[in-house]
Amino acid sequence: MKTRAAVAFEAKKPLEIVELDLEGPKQGEVLVEIMATGICHTDAYTLDGLDSEGLFPSVLGHEGAGIVREVGAGVTYVKPGDHVIPLYTPECRQCKSCLSGKTNLCTAIRATQGKGLMPDSTSRLSYKGQPIFHYMGCSTFSNFTVLPEIAVAKIRTDAPFKTACYCGCGVTTGVGAVVNTAKVEPGANVVVFGLGGIGLNVIQGAKLVGADKIIGVDLNNDKKEWGEKFGMTDFVNPKEIDGDIVAHLVELTGGGADYTFDCTGNTTVMRQALEACHRGWGVSVVIGVAEAGKEISTRPFQLVTGRVWKGSAFGGARGRTDTPKIVDWYMNGKIQIDPMITHTLTLEEINKGFDLMHAGKSIRSVVVY
Amino acid sequence: MKTRAAVAFEAKKPLEIVELDLEGPKQGEVLVEIMATGICHTDAYTLDGLDSEGLFPSVLGHEGAGIVREVGAGVTYVKPGDHVIPLYTPECRQCKSCLSGKTNLCTAIRATQGKGLMPDSTSRLSYKGQPIFHYMGCSTFSNFTVLPEIAVAKIRTDAPFKTACYCGCGVTTGVGAVVNTAKVEPGANVVVFGLGGIGLNVIQGAKLVGADKIIGVDLNNDKKEWGEKFGMTDFVNPKEIDGDIVAHLVELTGGGADYTFDCTGNTTVMRQALEACHRGWGVSVVIGVAEAGKEISTRPFQLVTGRVWKGSAFGGARGRTDTPKIVDWYMNGKIQIDPMITHTLTLEEINKGFDLMHAGKSIRSVVVY
Repeated sequence: MKTRAAVAFEAKKPLEIVELDLEGPKQGEVLVEIMATGICHTDAYTLDGLDSEGLFPSVLGHEGAGIVREVGAGVTYVKPGDHVIPLYTPECRQCKSCLSGKTNLCTAIRATQGKGLMPDSTSRLSYKGQPIFHYMGCSTFSNFTVLPEIAVAKIRTDAPFKTACYCGCGVTTGVGAVVNTAKVEPGANVVVFGLGGIGLNVIQGAKLVGADKIIGVDLNNDKKEWGEKFGMTDFVNPKEIDGDIVAHLVELTGGGADYTFDCTGNTTVMRQALEACHRGWGVSVVIGVAEAGKEISTRPFQLVTGRVWKGSAFGGARGRTDTPKIVDWYMNGKIQIDPMITHTLTLEEINKGFDLMHAGKSIRSVVVY
Repeated sequence: MKTRAAVAFEAKKPLEIVELDLEGPKQGEVLVEIMATGICHTDAYTLDGLDSEGLFPSVLGHEGAGIVREVGAGVTYVKPGDHVIPLYTPECRQCKSCLSGKTNLCTAIRATQGKGLMPDSTSRLSYKGQPIFHYMGCSTFSNFTVLPEIAVAKIRTDAPFKTACYCGCGVTTGVGAVVNTAKVEPGANVVVFGLGGIGLNVIQGAKLVGADKIIGVDLNNDKKEWGEKFGMTDFVNPKEIDGDIVAHLVELTGGGADYTFDCTGNTTVMRQALEACHRGWGVSVVIGVAEAGKEISTRPFQLVTGRVWKGSAFGGARGRTDTPKIVDWYMNGKIQIDPMITHTLTLEEINKGFDLMHAGKSIRSVVVY
């Protein structure tokens, strides 16, 4: 079949809207009509050539929502007509990682996914006879895409695609980091570094679980209003305080935060986030993706005196099990998504979405097919 | 009253055995006759002048066991005749840290303890009219010493002092790191870096909780036999393998360790310990004390893909609540201490104990009064 898609033919060039050939689903795979997709910083990171493992030509996009249109042999989890969110972190429920009960980082299809291929080591996408790479196992910048059955989460059919798609990455990453990774408890004091889309979702996750102080830290004062919309109680601009940001935050939290979250990807900030934690029990969660080659450091005394340094990928959410819950929480009004969708675009306008992101003018741009 | 003690008059000099004046216990304090005390690397660290906060003249020693001989006003927790272990990590059960239920790092007397003083900001020890500093709130290199009531753990009276004293630091630090801090579960794979006294106690803690593989890593092949005595299943000498120690350990554990413990204090080893953890859930615990100014580093990707970096002080044991349990486990045969006590000395021989430690010829030397 044919599908309209935005193709990244090479790094550092705008995407091109073309018609691709799409092979139908093989055994254990499903064909999904993507109805909406968010444009995430990770797509830009790859398109800008910053990801040393980035592959071209490829169809980017990993934050989508759509409808199953066809299933391959042996598929039992979904049927045509089901509404789904593609999962860049699948959930096979069979591998050592899934069975550990300790992580969401399923390894079933990791090797081929990293190579831009389906589990049988081939691509379903091609252009004029040349294969096009899949991206993060999703390729949601294509109107139709093929995914392994284990890489879609079945969601309720009354959730709007335009907002539900954000649960495919940003919302789940932020809210999940609070709920699944840090397991923040009611009454905790929380500090969130970086108030982009992820940071705002961490804030609303902290509000959801009943945190007391929810302190947002950002260099841009415009983010204060954004943070407050989602439950932030205090805003700190590091440029506008006297002295050290860590000492300031320790003071503001009465001895240090119970939980801190880095949503910046800046390794200096990651250290500040750890050291702003309370002695004895403070937990710092790294969410942001750092530049290649950058390292985090601290004195080991910070750990020996009880601080914990951990990280979170896709919010620690098990793809098929937990993503539908996040959609439910949105539909039940426990979390908000609508105000975060600042721009709605057509596929033809997708490069504008990247421009808005680079200019810091969007929280989330969504392409609606 | 008078007490015989080994005094550190200045750094980098042998201890001197002298008779000190000891003031009796004030309100909330107890007088303890120390019956035995271990000599720990931390005492040597201070005596060697490596601790920038070390105070002289002082009475070192923090790993003792003894008998309460007198109690000050208001003391209710112990009475004369009770057997106790002095606690450099006290447990007031009233402060924010104790009440958090999340840490053993009681802060009730932290400020004065750090200054070598009792909670009323004075010393009970003096020599020819000049005050002598307390050390880590314990000063067990004195035959009699005064401690706050919250800084003694009451233990069973049938436990021999010569071995029970080791629960005042090394045994509890190692076993507790497994049981309290890491909470290692049956069937887990564990790697222990550094097979000194702490490392051996981590090993027997891992055996106690039913770990599968218990891998010891040390540059000294003589430690293989020691490790095996306490439950080590595999020994690795990094000098005797081909290639990278991390890759070797990941291979040996079938993908990475569930738990690793640094008992070396070497920050390069701390990084190896983190990176030898299993993707998705491996937890690395820093126990060793690093040289002043040294820092630990890693790529944040190590955390984002599920490894956790934490630390442990006094094995995460609440002083009064958990230390007596460690003594019980010893008395019930769940853990061993006797084979670790390699040398028994008189107070007059105490400097020999430091020499043995520096020469790597002892696991633990104990002074019996």
